[in-house]
Amino acid sequence: MESRDSFPEDLTKALVASYGRHSRTCNLGNEIIPSRDAIAAIVEDLLELLFPGFHRRQNLNSGNIRYHVGDLLDDLRVRLAEQISRVGQPGRTPSESKDRSMEQALGLLERLPALREVLEADVLAAYEGDPAAHSCQEVVFCYPGLHAVAVYRLAHELLLLGVPVIPRMMTELAHGQTGIDLHPGARIGPGFFIDHGTGVVVGGTCVIGNRVKLYQGVTLGALSFPRDSNGNIIRGRKRHPTLEDDVVVYANATILGGETVVGHHSVIGSSVWLTQSVAPHSMVMMDKPSLRIRGASKGEFDNFSGFYQI
Amino acid sequence: MESRDSFPEDLTKALVASYGRHSRTCNLGNEIIPSRDAIAAIVEDLLELLFPGFHRRQNLNSGNIRYHVGDLLDDLRVRLAEQISRVGQPGRTPSESKDRSMEQALGLLERLPALREVLEADVLAAYEGDPAAHSCQEVVFCYPGLHAVAVYRLAHELLLLGVPVIPRMMTELAHGQTGIDLHPGARIGPGFFIDHGTGVVVGGTCVIGNRVKLYQGVTLGALSFPRDSNGNIIRGRKRHPTLEDDVVVYANATILGGETVVGHHSVIGSSVWLTQSVAPHSMVMMDKPSLRIRGASKGEFDNFSGFYQI
Amino acid sequence: MESRDSFPEDLTKALVASYGRHSRTCNLGNEIIPSRDAIAAIVEDLLELLFPGFHRRQNLNSGNIRYHVGDLLDDLRVRLAEQISRVGQPGRTPSESKDRSMEQALGLLERLPALREVLEADVLAAYEGDPAAHSCQEVVFCYPGLHAVAVYRLAHELLLLGVPVIPRMMTELAHGQTGIDLHPGARIGPGFFIDHGTGVVVGGTCVIGNRVKLYQGVTLGALSFPRDSNGNIIRGRKRHPTLEDDVVVYANATILGGETVVGHHSVIGSSVWLTQSVAPHSMVMMDKPSLRIRGASKGEFDNFSGFYQI
Repeated sequence: MESRDSFPEDLTKALVASYGRHSRTCNLGNEIIPSRDAIAAIVEDLLELLFPGFHRRQNLNSGNIRYHVGDLLDDLRVRLAEQISRVGQPGRTPSESKDRSMEQALGLLERLPALREVLEADVLAAYEGDPAAHSCQEVVFCYPGLHAVAVYRLAHELLLLGVPVIPRMMTELAHGQTGIDLHPGARIGPGFFIDHGTGVVVGGTCVIGNRVKLYQGVTLGALSFPRDSNGNIIRGRKRHPTLEDDVVVYANATILGGETVVGHHSVIGSSVWLTQSVAPHSMVMMDKPSLRIRGASKGEFDNFSGFYQI
Repeated sequence: MESRDSFPEDLTKALVASYGRHSRTCNLGNEIIPSRDAIAAIVEDLLELLFPGFHRRQNLNSGNIRYHVGDLLDDLRVRLAEQISRVGQPGRTPSESKDRSMEQALGLLERLPALREVLEADVLAAYEGDPAAHSCQEVVFCYPGLHAVAVYRLAHELLLLGVPVIPRMMTELAHGQTGIDLHPGARIGPGFFIDHGTGVVVGGTCVIGNRVKLYQGVTLGALSFPRDSNGNIIRGRKRHPTLEDDVVVYANATILGGETVVGHHSVIGSSVWLTQSVAPHSMVMMDKPSLRIRGASKGEFDNFSGFYQI
Repeated sequence: MESRDSFPEDLTKALVASYGRHSRTCNLGNEIIPSRDAIAAIVEDLLELLFPGFHRRQNLNSGNIRYHVGDLLDDLRVRLAEQISRVGQPGRTPSESKDRSMEQALGLLERLPALREVLEADVLAAYEGDPAAHSCQEVVFCYPGLHAVAVYRLAHELLLLGVPVIPRMMTELAHGQTGIDLHPGARIGPGFFIDHGTGVVVGGTCVIGNRVKLYQGVTLGALSFPRDSNGNIIRGRKRHPTLEDDVVVYANATILGGETVVGHHSVIGSSVWLTQSVAPHSMVMMDKPSLRIRGASKGEFDNFSGFYQI
């Protein structure tokens, strides 16, 4: 054990040597990478532009809204371009990179009005689909599912604009906040409602239609990984299922496979495990699960040692 | 694409037009709504009064506790009344609203001693029910399940006092922090223990007795939505199950339906899916699930393409 | 209801009386306990030393890294020793406690180079096991699973050094951030990859080998609690399963029991429920679940009342 006299010199030396030996887990060498805090702040500002008046600025009205929006857009463009420029633009000069980053930042901001159209459909779907919702504003204000979907839509646009890494940072931030894991690569139509949401996983090559509804714990995942002849995973192929319009997937259902298509207007019941396609207008449920139900006295529970899960 | 000269004017105009067209996803027009940050701070202070000395003020003792509590109560009443006044009091004059908000804030604070009684039972249930717990203080200090239950109990009291929106904000805050989704409308008796907790969903019309224990991933949910003749969801009916006293529900079990009653002292096993009532002292388990177990060589795994879930 | 004249005196009196009556849910009496915020900051700093350059200091390079590391180590040792000293050292004088706390803090810091070796294997496992990962840096930067595992490894070291309470605080912090619940008592070999992660629960007496991979919702849990003749839970016995090297456990599988061993190179399929040991090189899958698939017209859905889970 290190004596106090040699602390921290010996340990510093050991750590720095480790950085040299295992450089893949370090970011040294003057490469500035995106700041997670800056991205989080940018996301909050983007959400403010999508849903004005709910959080920071609550005294917005038709008189002051124009100034507030213009000011925020102006500032956001610069901050977003700065973060984008940090992810690297291979093959471009610094000046080209700077231009490209500014272009991409502007590209996302210009999509905001169109995203509001889609998000209104998402909010309405939540309100109409949940007996516990009292108003659309409550959905915007309180619903973690709506928050996760809004962040996903922003991340998806950024991905389409060719920005790497940052879309994933955005959805992982939302994942940490809501327990909902939506990969930015998924394609999801308007009117998308995730209720409760904890544990939902939507894979990056999912295709989801309009007015689709998911409950907590639903996985839309992959079925095996194709590997090349060297045993390395092949990246990029469609691995995740397609859900057509008006599909409902109840809690804890698992749907897998890049070729699995759930036909429109189908209902996938709770805890179903599905790896095959189903026709439109299908109802898919587990066989009524066989339960063993026994009456038992109190003493019997004390000695019972099977099947208690903790 | 917008030229730099016209940015941000054109986009500002487009966004503001969108706010006008889709107003349900905006909060403009001088309506101040509750502040999520203020509610979060109020919840932290309420938790401090329920469990003094664990977080901010750690040098509390019998000498200074009285001043600290008195001071905090005084300040909390004002801040809570302010947030409550923002959710609107239909049919009242501003002065009546102000009085009513103050009344409701006071009402919650006056419930704190009674809530401490209930929460002590909850903490004891956690300590006695978890081999990994070393002390009651550790439960208060570390257990996300206890945090979620404490916030639920505060939210439930506020709901009973007739405050809208804010109870839901409080439980969704705790949901984001713990992955545990307890609707403030549920009725839950003392001695309630949620272990691990991620993925637990308790619906708003659940009735849960005393000394009930839930594990991670348990859903107490609804079975279909009654709709009226126009196809609109009927809000308010009991949709979620009843668990009587001393019930244990193991991980990932799903219990559904407003008429489903789990009799007292029953045990619902892991991954059970239950939509019917069971008598007291029942043990309900899945049939020992049929597993297919195959030995396989390494080469076989590489080519195996069925049933791998990602 | 209390009149405004007597508020807050009567309520303060009632609350303070409650603190006296129910002292197990209070921390009064001059006992300083660890600060959750301070522990969170210490964890962030430890992560910075494990993965330099990703968050706060992004302009680190071979020129300034030595100073930054030395400076941080020096400061961390003091802060960590301070928190450790708060958890109590029964049977020691204050001076002995202070020395012991400093010893334990130093002990953790000295493990950092060795932890980096293990964590590099964890990062590589994530990169090689996930088609969506573009680089090792992206894994360090974005993956909640990696974050949870890194915090677990720090907590586990601290537990081995004999520090109580704080290891659990650390893993519960990470649990709140990621939905992944890894008990600091578990023993987990290098190359450990948790993908998606929400809902994973690894119990405190789990033993996990090298290069093991888990997906979201996997529970490695206990099967019944042994109780002594007085009905009290026996703490400390191995209650959780063993996974040997190179095991893969797919989403939502549940493996239970202190005597359950999953042989090396086995694959446990999605949603499997396993309470028995399996030999090496086994594939364990649910029997292809029986699904009922019905075509149905739209009207039929409206009247269908069975098996919809919300």
